[in-house]
Amino acid sequence: MTDVVIRPATAADVPGIVAMLIDDEVAAQRESPDDLSPYLRAFADIDTDLNQLLVVAARNDELLGTLQMTIIPGLSRKGARRALVEAVRVAASARGLGLGTTLMEWAVDEARRQNCQIIQLTSDKVRVDAHRFYERLGFAASHVGFKMPLG
Amino acid sequence: MTDVVIRPATAADVPGIVAMLIDDEVAAQRESPDDLSPYLRAFADIDTDLNQLLVVAARNDELLGTLQMTIIPGLSRKGARRALVEAVRVAASARGLGLGTTLMEWAVDEARRQNCQIIQLTSDKVRVDAHRFYERLGFAASHVGFKMPLG
Repeated sequence: MTDVVIRPATAADVPGIVAMLIDDEVAAQRESPDDLSPYLRAFADIDTDLNQLLVVAARNDELLGTLQMTIIPGLSRKGARRALVEAVRVAASARGLGLGTTLMEWAVDEARRQNCQIIQLTSDKVRVDAHRFYERLGFAASHVGFKMPLG
Repeated sequence: MTDVVIRPATAADVPGIVAMLIDDEVAAQRESPDDLSPYLRAFADIDTDLNQLLVVAARNDELLGTLQMTIIPGLSRKGARRALVEAVRVAASARGLGLGTTLMEWAVDEARRQNCQIIQLTSDKVRVDAHRFYERLGFAASHVGFKMPLG
């Protein structure tokens, strides 16, 4: 896709990012866009944490994609830094055009720039197409991802 | 186990933590304990990041377990904070005594104290016993964990 830039998200992008989070069959019911205040509070926390990178893919003023990367220092693997990718979304209007690949290639390059030795993510077991996508990019489905909501 | 305390790790614990990371059939070959300097650099990065918690389970001066927790703010799930657990280890001398449960229960409680709405981790597909352990604690094996080393 031409004319697409990947840039850090701003508070003004939050409504558009939430709209992309909702436009997803797995995650839609988890969100509540009628009240943006919890999202804006979370954005402030992300924005002040130097190890968080929330980015958008935009063409002019149109948001087409987003992802969040967390840089995690650790002792394992000889003190390796790792990059964790969460909340990857491509807007419905931009699907099938390679933007997911562009976003993930950006993430891999950024992880290298940040001296990470590993990049990782989890994907819901039902997202079978996404799994093929990540494997084509070079990721190995080597782990089981466990989650527990905290009531 | 009695007399075990879970406390933040200090730089003096790094050699003992690395010894526990190595004493593991999956991860042993990833480590190089002969040179502790990369581990000590990583410890300094963890120690200065308010969203990182590296803890040890200790009895007197003996280290019996460790885990690292990362607090991750995010927009998804109505601006939910999540807790990511990495590098869970129990020393060989303390296995089978319930210390893994104690450590993970500590992690769940700490995640709640930090206002996290979800706690998550990944476990290598070969660690079948660990998967049963996490499911007994209430985790769901809902995701596939993808990883890619960055050369």
